[in-house]
Amino acid sequence: MAGHAVDRLLQLIDEKQNPSVVGLDPVLAYIPEEIKQSAEKDMPPFRMVRKIFVRFNKMIIDAVKEIVPAVKPQVAFYEQYGSEGLKALEETVDYAKKQGLVVIGDGKRNDIGSTAQAYAAGFLGKVPLPNGETGPSFDVDFLTVTPYLGTDGIRPFMDFCRKEKKGIFVLVKTSNPSAGELQDVVTRNGAPLYEKVGKLVVQWGRDLVGERGYSSVGAVVAATYTQDAAKLRTLMPHSLFLVPGFGAQGGKADDVVPCFNEDGYGAVVNASRSIIYAWQKEPYRSRYRPGEFHLAAAAAAVDMREELRAALKKSSRLSGGKKAKS
Amino acid sequence: MAGHAVDRLLQLIDEKQNPSVVGLDPVLAYIPEEIKQSAEKDMPPFRMVRKIFVRFNKMIIDAVKEIVPAVKPQVAFYEQYGSEGLKALEETVDYAKKQGLVVIGDGKRNDIGSTAQAYAAGFLGKVPLPNGETGPSFDVDFLTVTPYLGTDGIRPFMDFCRKEKKGIFVLVKTSNPSAGELQDVVTRNGAPLYEKVGKLVVQWGRDLVGERGYSSVGAVVAATYTQDAAKLRTLMPHSLFLVPGFGAQGGKADDVVPCFNEDGYGAVVNASRSIIYAWQKEPYRSRYRPGEFHLAAAAAAVDMREELRAALKKSSRLSGGKKAKS
Repeated sequence: MAGHAVDRLLQLIDEKQNPSVVGLDPVLAYIPEEIKQSAEKDMPPFRMVRKIFVRFNKMIIDAVKEIVPAVKPQVAFYEQYGSEGLKALEETVDYAKKQGLVVIGDGKRNDIGSTAQAYAAGFLGKVPLPNGETGPSFDVDFLTVTPYLGTDGIRPFMDFCRKEKKGIFVLVKTSNPSAGELQDVVTRNGAPLYEKVGKLVVQWGRDLVGERGYSSVGAVVAATYTQDAAKLRTLMPHSLFLVPGFGAQGGKADDVVPCFNEDGYGAVVNASRSIIYAWQKEPYRSRYRPGEFHLAAAAAAVDMREELRAALKKSSRLSGGKKAKS
Repeated sequence: MAGHAVDRLLQLIDEKQNPSVVGLDPVLAYIPEEIKQSAEKDMPPFRMVRKIFVRFNKMIIDAVKEIVPAVKPQVAFYEQYGSEGLKALEETVDYAKKQGLVVIGDGKRNDIGSTAQAYAAGFLGKVPLPNGETGPSFDVDFLTVTPYLGTDGIRPFMDFCRKEKKGIFVLVKTSNPSAGELQDVVTRNGAPLYEKVGKLVVQWGRDLVGERGYSSVGAVVAATYTQDAAKLRTLMPHSLFLVPGFGAQGGKADDVVPCFNEDGYGAVVNASRSIIYAWQKEPYRSRYRPGEFHLAAAAAAVDMREELRAALKKSSRLSGGKKAKS
């Protein structure tokens, strides 16, 4: 498992003493005017969006790259602008990787086997080219995937986890208000559906456990439903949790603690809007100008790191490996 | 509901006397050499793929446009080639619409509300632009979506169904071997999960029923599991079913009959590989040369139409409206 994405992510969490991830979710309405006006006025509008997104993302990446181990572009915000939007995603992924960050593509993709194979190749591997060779496409380190199609939709991703040393996070329990509609459906044996999905994730990841004890097949587990997260943590000791819902979605540091194992590892906590648009809200708004949005993002990322570390310390699960242990 | 995609699709099914859909799933290895060699050799390889896909798709579209009411590009096969692949998708969608075809984007997208909003805008509506205006991106007529996140992930799509007169097909029962792993999980009241999802689809589509009695919120229901499809048909009389699994995935005309209502409407049956790569298999292979792949596709599309019509006639559910009734 040497060099696998999951081990690299855990290594960076140690180095940066920080189990958090910044979501790169560019939304035109929230991007400062300074950045929007920097695009040339005579460009076609979709290309203009691409330039704006890339410029914004690069400034955010530069501002947080020493603070966080990973970034998580939400594919929807790029894909809505079609091929130009996806070009912005490609440039963002490239840039983030060059800065040494782990990149989690948040696409929630999946399909039947032969189609899932195409998603897996496009996001985690190499695709066949007309010259008979293969080449990388998006080439992120991790991709989020949906479980509704069962094992044969997941298998192609598992193959790429093994072959290309990548990882996936399978949706188990999401952070949205109606998450429970299907995920909490009680099955005949009395357990909710998300538990069944959690057990499948354990099974899918069993042969892909890395040097640090965590599998390349992880799970999306929201902090919003604290007790469910705690139950899943016990059921899935070797699964890394990608935890959404921090910040703008209302999650707080104490809420995410149950997503961590006793050793302080086991979760990466994502915040998107509360970091990248920190300049729009207090306590940052009165201190930073719109043109300093990246400085506000860095400040918010540090604050989040410290909140998480304080909450983990309080619960005796201080994450961050080396320094934490010394 | 005038001019809604669901009514337009049903109208075209009548006009063409054909409830089938051709899946546009370009795979480099299956595209004839003639097409591959037509791309200029000094292009970057991803752009070459784009040119090849568009050329192949346009020839298929021209060959089947008088025969079928709709085409269904599988987004994964384009997206795996990144922004160039998505450009091929954009060009394919544009061309198919100009030829009068309904376009079903098979993306199986979804996410929490604010993110689902971006997918909905990108595929079914208009996106905000830097000049303060909005513009269309992929602009397909229908999109396939996943249900695992519940109602708030579906709501943005419902809004675009209403506002932009578009439609969605929600995954209920898929065609793959491990579909049942989660979809068949028995819930406490004794019903399988897919029934619960089917009932949610009915609820989501209730206020979006068109002039022909079918809702803009349809369902993906595989023909592979005949009894389950029959049960869903009864439970969901106003939901249009998108039926995958015909042809290459093993489904036969008699199998899809239970997906139709007694009046011969209620389902559109998709075939991808068995049509677009018909030239590679008998009975077409010995009759058509590789350069005649589009003629083989037309022949296979006609054969499929006649098989479906014969099976529906046998079961007294002949589809095709006007002519069928006369």
